[in-house]
Amino acid sequence: MYSVAVVGATGVVGQQFLVALDNHPWFKVECLAASPRSAGKPYIEALKGSEGEVRWFCDEPIPEGFIDMEVEDSSDIDPSDFDLIFTAVESDVASKIEPRYAEETPVVSTASAFRYEEDIPILVPGVNDGHTRLIEIQRKRRGWRGFITPIPNCTTTGLVVTLKPLMDEFGLERVIMTSMQALSGAGRSPGVLALDIIDNIIPYIKGEEWKVEIESKKILGSIANDRIEPADFKISCTCTRVFVKDGHTEVVYASLKRRASIEEIKEAFISFGESVFKDSGLPSAPRRFIVCFDDPFRPQPRLDRDLYGGMAVAVGRIREDPALENGVKYILLSHNTRLGAAKGAVLVAELLVKEGIV
Amino acid sequence: MYSVAVVGATGVVGQQFLVALDNHPWFKVECLAASPRSAGKPYIEALKGSEGEVRWFCDEPIPEGFIDMEVEDSSDIDPSDFDLIFTAVESDVASKIEPRYAEETPVVSTASAFRYEEDIPILVPGVNDGHTRLIEIQRKRRGWRGFITPIPNCTTTGLVVTLKPLMDEFGLERVIMTSMQALSGAGRSPGVLALDIIDNIIPYIKGEEWKVEIESKKILGSIANDRIEPADFKISCTCTRVFVKDGHTEVVYASLKRRASIEEIKEAFISFGESVFKDSGLPSAPRRFIVCFDDPFRPQPRLDRDLYGGMAVAVGRIREDPALENGVKYILLSHNTRLGAAKGAVLVAELLVKEGIV
Amino acid sequence: MYSVAVVGATGVVGQQFLVALDNHPWFKVECLAASPRSAGKPYIEALKGSEGEVRWFCDEPIPEGFIDMEVEDSSDIDPSDFDLIFTAVESDVASKIEPRYAEETPVVSTASAFRYEEDIPILVPGVNDGHTRLIEIQRKRRGWRGFITPIPNCTTTGLVVTLKPLMDEFGLERVIMTSMQALSGAGRSPGVLALDIIDNIIPYIKGEEWKVEIESKKILGSIANDRIEPADFKISCTCTRVFVKDGHTEVVYASLKRRASIEEIKEAFISFGESVFKDSGLPSAPRRFIVCFDDPFRPQPRLDRDLYGGMAVAVGRIREDPALENGVKYILLSHNTRLGAAKGAVLVAELLVKEGIV
Amino acid sequence: MYSVAVVGATGVVGQQFLVALDNHPWFKVECLAASPRSAGKPYIEALKGSEGEVRWFCDEPIPEGFIDMEVEDSSDIDPSDFDLIFTAVESDVASKIEPRYAEETPVVSTASAFRYEEDIPILVPGVNDGHTRLIEIQRKRRGWRGFITPIPNCTTTGLVVTLKPLMDEFGLERVIMTSMQALSGAGRSPGVLALDIIDNIIPYIKGEEWKVEIESKKILGSIANDRIEPADFKISCTCTRVFVKDGHTEVVYASLKRRASIEEIKEAFISFGESVFKDSGLPSAPRRFIVCFDDPFRPQPRLDRDLYGGMAVAVGRIREDPALENGVKYILLSHNTRLGAAKGAVLVAELLVKEGIV
Repeated sequence: MYSVAVVGATGVVGQQFLVALDNHPWFKVECLAASPRSAGKPYIEALKGSEGEVRWFCDEPIPEGFIDMEVEDSSDIDPSDFDLIFTAVESDVASKIEPRYAEETPVVSTASAFRYEEDIPILVPGVNDGHTRLIEIQRKRRGWRGFITPIPNCTTTGLVVTLKPLMDEFGLERVIMTSMQALSGAGRSPGVLALDIIDNIIPYIKGEEWKVEIESKKILGSIANDRIEPADFKISCTCTRVFVKDGHTEVVYASLKRRASIEEIKEAFISFGESVFKDSGLPSAPRRFIVCFDDPFRPQPRLDRDLYGGMAVAVGRIREDPALENGVKYILLSHNTRLGAAKGAVLVAELLVKEGIV
Repeated sequence: MYSVAVVGATGVVGQQFLVALDNHPWFKVECLAASPRSAGKPYIEALKGSEGEVRWFCDEPIPEGFIDMEVEDSSDIDPSDFDLIFTAVESDVASKIEPRYAEETPVVSTASAFRYEEDIPILVPGVNDGHTRLIEIQRKRRGWRGFITPIPNCTTTGLVVTLKPLMDEFGLERVIMTSMQALSGAGRSPGVLALDIIDNIIPYIKGEEWKVEIESKKILGSIANDRIEPADFKISCTCTRVFVKDGHTEVVYASLKRRASIEEIKEAFISFGESVFKDSGLPSAPRRFIVCFDDPFRPQPRLDRDLYGGMAVAVGRIREDPALENGVKYILLSHNTRLGAAKGAVLVAELLVKEGIV
Repeated sequence: MYSVAVVGATGVVGQQFLVALDNHPWFKVECLAASPRSAGKPYIEALKGSEGEVRWFCDEPIPEGFIDMEVEDSSDIDPSDFDLIFTAVESDVASKIEPRYAEETPVVSTASAFRYEEDIPILVPGVNDGHTRLIEIQRKRRGWRGFITPIPNCTTTGLVVTLKPLMDEFGLERVIMTSMQALSGAGRSPGVLALDIIDNIIPYIKGEEWKVEIESKKILGSIANDRIEPADFKISCTCTRVFVKDGHTEVVYASLKRRASIEEIKEAFISFGESVFKDSGLPSAPRRFIVCFDDPFRPQPRLDRDLYGGMAVAVGRIREDPALENGVKYILLSHNTRLGAAKGAVLVAELLVKEGIV
Repeated sequence: MYSVAVVGATGVVGQQFLVALDNHPWFKVECLAASPRSAGKPYIEALKGSEGEVRWFCDEPIPEGFIDMEVEDSSDIDPSDFDLIFTAVESDVASKIEPRYAEETPVVSTASAFRYEEDIPILVPGVNDGHTRLIEIQRKRRGWRGFITPIPNCTTTGLVVTLKPLMDEFGLERVIMTSMQALSGAGRSPGVLALDIIDNIIPYIKGEEWKVEIESKKILGSIANDRIEPADFKISCTCTRVFVKDGHTEVVYASLKRRASIEEIKEAFISFGESVFKDSGLPSAPRRFIVCFDDPFRPQPRLDRDLYGGMAVAVGRIREDPALENGVKYILLSHNTRLGAAKGAVLVAELLVKEGIV
């Protein structure tokens, strides 16, 4: 068993980490860390709000084992006590504490603070496992015993999982993506007010489109000269917020490098989806990474976001696109707080363990 | 004053016609027609459901003058009694009664039954007024004293209003559009069940994408050899349903024939929007047909759908598109039950009167 | 194993029966019956809508074993082929087919058709098990080998579960209840339109208040002279519909026959809730029938409706009521499509088996 | 014209004041005051958020005349510059600044800070106009030239408007009320998160039930010995939050002192509602204070909250209550941000002017 710490354990994403790590066969959570305000309290007390209500936000109950565990101050923990540290903190905090941890210990992060640095890979298991090579470069360059590996923005994840087989089989020329994102993606501080989204759509999510465009090309890029060369397709996104609790829906239009029939494209999705984690042995990997629907009314967020524990990407409405050269269009759905957040980060850690990097 | 009949007057769109025509300076509603079930009843009685509740679905109250008006059977009315007939019936009914009416009298229709016939124009005032020339051709070919002019699908309207200035100023190569459509667009028979859309998106609207693609090219096309030559740009749509009462949001990506700066594009929108109905004298025309927002959080359906009485198209988030040649992307919002339905049809009728065709 | 049929198997409640009965330790579903339109088709085909989409409405997937089972015509099945028949049909259908079935076979019904007849008990296990005595009377009077036992309206169930310990411990004088009911309680034919409930409350549910008032007094009544003497408390309800998918919330004000402290009342709820199914051996019974919250923000439908598989009633905000003699007020939540429908009916069947009546 | 200041002018309620006071025939807004952060800025600039977006939250546009008006620091204004001050600030701020203002000038407040002091009336025009007598007592006791008159909590208002004719005509013994309150009642700081209310009800609003109970008895009380003697009926409330934008729905059960038929009760509501403001000349008073529905599906928040400019209380489902002596039950709807907030406060000011107190 690997000894791990969860930093930011009282927040929404931190709570999701605890659910994802409860009874994990490889990882044992030996430390819950958070801000000084929570430090020294039993976990359940640290969750309480001003009315005494327990501010626990997962659908699953609080795993028993953590309820009375004492929360530590994230500034005080000694990273060398752990084999691995999961961080679930805001970017400004991450930019301070993650390098300190990484001097000693591998850090798998949900924050964006280091995503865009050239020696730091954004790992999506099954999509760019080879980018783990960058870790050694990162360690050398920075003189760290550990390292930092962030996961992507939750909107990027589903997109690159579906683009990967298209790029490998047919080549990618252009990608246009419109997202309809779930409320949980905005978190709770401040989050989206009900007053603002009732009978409404919010057509803008600050910074989101840039992140998805940059991250997608980096994740699907290749390593050259000890750095990642972004993939060379063009990409354009529009990100919106809708009244859905969980599950980001993305409408994708892609121009391929070579003509492909709808049947070939479905086959590429299905075959990639079924083979990518086959015999991988990764505990959090879904049996199918992509699930294809023929029913044109699917995927739907409420019905399909939990497929394979929220770790699969659902794809439907695969059609020829009449406006783009060798065009295909489809709709994808991926669970932003499972595959797209803590559970996706645990999958990254599993890959790192399997590859002997942790 | 022109004497008009409203056929399908008890349905949702028919009700919107009554609101749009109440105290209209040019049109006087002299007949409310509906199915035999309603015929012979005072209008208010024809609206009542099985619990005695009044099934009136507009936000505005029932215009006083119609409350006690006796409803006639749409099969029995004599079209020659009226200068103009507005129809708000399902397509299968429209395909039977509209030709009968058109033998004698002009028909402005919200149904799709005749939209795709080559001698029938789909009119959007301000966008393709010249297509009224097709009416004379239609009359001759069919031997009618009247004619049929359908309005487009409610999702097409906002799109063509914004594409028109782009096409005129810069030329259009490709258009990709993702819609997030309001519940009222699905009507009430059967409409969208709350159980299906709560915490959800429905990723498919039967027939909608085809309609928007075909209609947009027809409306923006030109007349040649006594028929409409569709505009030659490529277009691809994905239409979805979201939890919004009124107002269709559309995310548009366009590849232009020549490069244009964001400032030029905004200028094209604003200048078209402000000039198109200037001095037109059409009572239902908005002062601005396009309203541009700089605030990236706009347009929002609940906040902006009622601009200029629901007759303006709101546009925001105008940006360069990095994936398309000479690409621009933007978000538009148009009111599907005002500009996109009855009130839009009344505007068509006003244009026909002004041009001396009615 | 008891051989059972599910009649109305393609409808929403019928589907819930299949989920509730999948791998049931006592009951084996040997017949799926529905209307003639579905008869002769494999179950999965009978579920398909006009677009080919599978109209399956449970959160759980379709149990494998039923997918290819041939659907039979509910008018044609021979009731004597089964030990027990579950019916999930509309009341008008129930009033015809249930007596025919009951001539031969016990019928557990979710319909209201026979609820108000004096020799027919409305069973809620744990609350009025003694009312099973009425079954023998029913059989004799009607000359049936089988019998009919309907479950109550889904809004009644949670109410009587909480009133039972109050009545037993302190006596009940008056009950006032306001419900905020979930969308799934209205079913799908026609169900609640999203257009009607968006940004809204519907303050009336036809027939509901009368049902809850009558059923509650019958269920909590006693048997005298071979019929049920309704309990003698006064009861008044107001039933409304709100934008919640599942889980009926009920605000209850009760006047007790003797003064009780909040602590005594909590103790009555908890003690009843924990003991009532203890060692009962009923497979669908919850470990706790009532779960009490101290956190004033609970129960909440989305968070608490699935407690103990949706078979527990959640209670919170227990306070003294300043307006009633010996008054107490509280809020309860119960799952209308689990405890309140098919799964509750399965629990009834389990009780009947255990008592040797089936 | 009376010169007025609006304090807290940049907040949600302050904005509603500006809409309510725009072009008011009696009041001229000569000062917009807010916190030091806003002071010195043009109003439109003070509204801007960190993205440059204008944080204006009314459905109506910003009244032209206020857009460029300079905002003043609420601590710096000289109350003697105005005939009347409207305050729309949080209670902790109100408790500091309102007494300072009241030394010189009448204050009409939406805050709860002073509502429960014995020399301070909570005025609801049409319901307790006679309580203005307390103002003179307040002035004397406190040595103020001005005074403070708070309006009630927004949930109290609709309740007391409907209880008034019942109490006057039939006497009131007990009142039990369950509310389903709108999101706008929670404001925006922090307000209700969409994540918390989606597919959900929140069964608790801190402090609300106590406020409604105390305020209702105070407002309906009588003056004796220079203080208000609360009305002597018993009252019990449960307040919940639902997914509705505006409009509080309240389910009321009342036990009257003498038996009354449903017709008598309707008559009492209608006659009070039509007569109370007749010939009052108050510009913001609705023509009917109570609107009664026979249709059992009404009132509904989205359909009926805006009756008479949001200043009327809609009542429906008036029925006998079988659980209470001389019982009646009904459902009411009142607009929490119009009658229940700023516009209601303006009506109070109008009454004070008419009575010569301001």
